[in-house]
Amino acid sequence: MNTALDDGSLRQLFSGARTYNGFIDKPVADDQLQAIWDLAKWGPTAMNGLPMRLLFVKSAAAKEKLRPALAEGNLAKTLAAPATVIVATDFEFYGRLPRLFPAFAGARDLFAGNGALAEATASRNATLQGGYLILAIRAVGLDAGPMSGFDNAKVDAAFFAGTKVRSNFLVNVGYGDAGKVHPRGPRPDFSEDCRIL
Amino acid sequence: MNTALDDGSLRQLFSGARTYNGFIDKPVADDQLQAIWDLAKWGPTAMNGLPMRLLFVKSAAAKEKLRPALAEGNLAKTLAAPATVIVATDFEFYGRLPRLFPAFAGARDLFAGNGALAEATASRNATLQGGYLILAIRAVGLDAGPMSGFDNAKVDAAFFAGTKVRSNFLVNVGYGDAGKVHPRGPRPDFSEDCRIL
Repeated sequence: MNTALDDGSLRQLFSGARTYNGFIDKPVADDQLQAIWDLAKWGPTAMNGLPMRLLFVKSAAAKEKLRPALAEGNLAKTLAAPATVIVATDFEFYGRLPRLFPAFAGARDLFAGNGALAEATASRNATLQGGYLILAIRAVGLDAGPMSGFDNAKVDAAFFAGTKVRSNFLVNVGYGDAGKVHPRGPRPDFSEDCRIL
Repeated sequence: MNTALDDGSLRQLFSGARTYNGFIDKPVADDQLQAIWDLAKWGPTAMNGLPMRLLFVKSAAAKEKLRPALAEGNLAKTLAAPATVIVATDFEFYGRLPRLFPAFAGARDLFAGNGALAEATASRNATLQGGYLILAIRAVGLDAGPMSGFDNAKVDAAFFAGTKVRSNFLVNVGYGDAGKVHPRGPRPDFSEDCRIL
């Protein structure tokens, strides 16, 4: 049986973590990005479908490819971030189910024959994985700056043309600059957003 | 600057965590459910919109209300779980933005005037919060059994009639019975699902 994580870990993941709009001048190594995946990949998805795909945009050339899609308010901070993750969804995730979920032989056909179910399942589970990703970034000791302020169609055309992969959101990654956070927004009490029945 | 969490914490959250299909006979106290929310609420959402709503179904009467919506394979384990969380989405989340995101006075009207944007933002961010929730359950020392196998429309009619709140997925919560897990599904390598550009 587990017990609660120590207070420092809970602060790092949740109560003390912030969305960073800038990072100190310290690079993020490729093996740190791999470590993030090697945690996030364990998060649960329906039928182990794992529909999330990640592009870690680090090079100047790849940042330039991303630039035209960025909202003006997100431009400078994203170009300056050590890495920007394009969090995306593979809407043909079900093609891998014979390998990823061998317990149910009919899994692939279930989704292949039901576009609405495939789309809802891909969206829900890739976004759940996006939540695991943000916390995995924090768990390895890095900081995250997630964003929705960009042109999804432009990202898709630049990075995912000819595939069924579509962008979901972006996350800047690095060592957060404590001077580059906005005032923290209030959170509702338990009784406002939750009920026990 | 943070460092990585210790190995035990990483195992508890990610690499050693499992989806539980049964729980030992040990209740979950209401203050543990509140502790879960008091962590998960800190996860980032667009414009601090916090669209997720949670119903913690604990009582026999509330479990009976949930019963007709459950897929057969999820029925017994859900009725037996110490608590079942109905993870839901408030598609009118934007009504609270003047309070939750005072920095942008036009936030509410932006969504009120654009139904597609409001729906996409509610879905994406409530589901991200669902990811934070699953990891918060593990962080407080409990175990999670998330599920999509239920009739969303029946849950919505039984629990959310007359509102703009709609069910997203379910999570059984308790102290996991190690004998009630399926064999673990394989996870793709970094190079299969991720690229560094």
